[in-house]
Amino acid sequence: MVKPDFEVIATDGSARAGILSMQRHALKTPTFMPVGTRGSVRTVTSQDLEEIGADIILGNTYHLMLRPGEDLIKGFGGIHGFADWKRLILTDSGGYQVFSLEPKVDDGGVEFKSTYDGSLHRLTPERAVDIQCSLGADIQMVLDVCPPIPAEKRVLEIAVERTHKWAIRGRSHFLSNEKTFENERAQFGIVQGGLDRELRRISAEQIVEVGFDGYAIGGLSVGETRQEMIEPMQISAEGLPKQQLRYFMGLGDPAGLVEAIACGVDMFDCVWPTRLARHGTALTMQGRVNLGAARYAKSDDAIDPEFYASPANRWSRGYIRHLLSVGEPVAGRLLTLHNLAWIIDFMRRARESIVQGTFVDFRNETLQIWG
Amino acid sequence: MVKPDFEVIATDGSARAGILSMQRHALKTPTFMPVGTRGSVRTVTSQDLEEIGADIILGNTYHLMLRPGEDLIKGFGGIHGFADWKRLILTDSGGYQVFSLEPKVDDGGVEFKSTYDGSLHRLTPERAVDIQCSLGADIQMVLDVCPPIPAEKRVLEIAVERTHKWAIRGRSHFLSNEKTFENERAQFGIVQGGLDRELRRISAEQIVEVGFDGYAIGGLSVGETRQEMIEPMQISAEGLPKQQLRYFMGLGDPAGLVEAIACGVDMFDCVWPTRLARHGTALTMQGRVNLGAARYAKSDDAIDPEFYASPANRWSRGYIRHLLSVGEPVAGRLLTLHNLAWIIDFMRRARESIVQGTFVDFRNETLQIWG
Repeated sequence: MVKPDFEVIATDGSARAGILSMQRHALKTPTFMPVGTRGSVRTVTSQDLEEIGADIILGNTYHLMLRPGEDLIKGFGGIHGFADWKRLILTDSGGYQVFSLEPKVDDGGVEFKSTYDGSLHRLTPERAVDIQCSLGADIQMVLDVCPPIPAEKRVLEIAVERTHKWAIRGRSHFLSNEKTFENERAQFGIVQGGLDRELRRISAEQIVEVGFDGYAIGGLSVGETRQEMIEPMQISAEGLPKQQLRYFMGLGDPAGLVEAIACGVDMFDCVWPTRLARHGTALTMQGRVNLGAARYAKSDDAIDPEFYASPANRWSRGYIRHLLSVGEPVAGRLLTLHNLAWIIDFMRRARESIVQGTFVDFRNETLQIWG
Repeated sequence: MVKPDFEVIATDGSARAGILSMQRHALKTPTFMPVGTRGSVRTVTSQDLEEIGADIILGNTYHLMLRPGEDLIKGFGGIHGFADWKRLILTDSGGYQVFSLEPKVDDGGVEFKSTYDGSLHRLTPERAVDIQCSLGADIQMVLDVCPPIPAEKRVLEIAVERTHKWAIRGRSHFLSNEKTFENERAQFGIVQGGLDRELRRISAEQIVEVGFDGYAIGGLSVGETRQEMIEPMQISAEGLPKQQLRYFMGLGDPAGLVEAIACGVDMFDCVWPTRLARHGTALTMQGRVNLGAARYAKSDDAIDPEFYASPANRWSRGYIRHLLSVGEPVAGRLLTLHNLAWIIDFMRRARESIVQGTFVDFRNETLQIWG
């Protein structure tokens, strides 16, 4: 058995439908993870997330290690106890946020200043494991180096090399501590290489050689166009073992999602659906709808008349538009619930099309509206 | 039968427990009305309010007539249809907010500038009725003149006089339109008179003589001390018919509530519990608790360990404290739900003590903690 227990139950081209079973919870893939940056998905609670059918959420190590600190969260029984969330949690390594702060990097690790109070902190592959253990993550990510796009070849090479070295150290530290873990835990490796095909191939090979419980495609969806993204993503995915989970970090728009699913990716996270929501935009079967617009003032339609399972279907576009226009905070909440439920349902529909062998149609229809 | 159907089912001293039955919904008194200023109680939905057991909410005519406008709301079937709220709605007349804007007042009505866009509007006793009909209020308030405290005797006298004249006009307009109402509607008169005993007596007599479906005590809880408030409140309440509903406008702290209930008041509204919530303060059986304080960082206690029915009992003080400290909006939501459920439960306990003849104890215990 591959750990964690992941089974591909259907394929359609390279796209696949699977089941991830962990002690705490099982989920169907492809799956979307709402982002709970600071121990809460903005405007909603763990109870709301259960009700809309979220199976797994993402927590940000960078934020949580600084506020309220991993030891405090550990005292509550990890994020699960702290936020009272009973399903799965994946945490990032903190690296992505840290590298956006122009930190001091050397082979040993990375030194950065807290955006909360300017205090100095150091993250190493080993410490990233320890923090994520304290946070109680079911799936944790190894520390990697995520360069910006575009980046010079030399910068990408150093990033891939360091990502490899850190993967070895992070994995070794994880495995040597494995017997002390209180719950089932998995660790994922991360493939880097920017938009460079050769570096993507090399990085995938290196990370797979280290051997993880699953693999992520990192360093993409950071500003490049969708067309630029597709080939490096394909190459990365092709280099990963078929029987293990594949996670594309930071992707959440329907067009990007179907392209990644077409390459055989299983897991996704992104702030996009929730950020759009807080700015008044709803995801619908006909595309984005900006409910702040005056033309919706008298509309008695539901937010998305074709999405019957929306948790916000009791309220009309006109009502939401009013709440947005007078700054009532519940507007952002209702749209967050709607958009998360919508994108989770979108993943369900993607999966169904894979199972039924109609994924090509699903992909084309999605690209027509969202491409 | 007095309209709306209100029955006192138990008394303890002057305190009383009753039942208000309207076609749409029935409720037990004493009752507390959450304030839905702009068609939404801040941070929560109509569904949340159903779940915490709110029977009636208050809508602000001033805000709703300006944004989104009463005609738009009428098109949605009133606030009930707009916010999808199936229980009772009471609307104020708009006067209270308008008088805080230093408007131009004459015997005919009041002219004011919108705080949204500076546009000029006029409110008259007749127009206040019409707007509240468009909003679909189950209970509407007559337009009155609410002077500040302290105010000179002459100012109070003019206010009482105009309140009387406007009551006659407002009532007459309401009754002459009654056959056009699509749903059962009640109209309440308002007693004014500031802190002046004699004017309170006169105002109560005048308003009762006009004859309404229920009566409110207005112009108190506007900055005076609780001690200053009690006598004018008592005098106002004593002047009102025993078989009809009595509503104290703008009161919501437990000590004030028990004093008013002791005088035989049945209905209350206030932004206090919800405003406190958004600032991080919880209502508990032991008094206020400011959950923003660092000493709660590691607390695994519930928000109020003695209030078992809190809708936020899944989350600890420590978690709420963290959410507050990093500015997660869901903190204000959870505390709003908690505080509203707490104050609704407080009214239930008050009622129970009246039914059981132990209201004196309930009042003393409340004053010990909240007085």
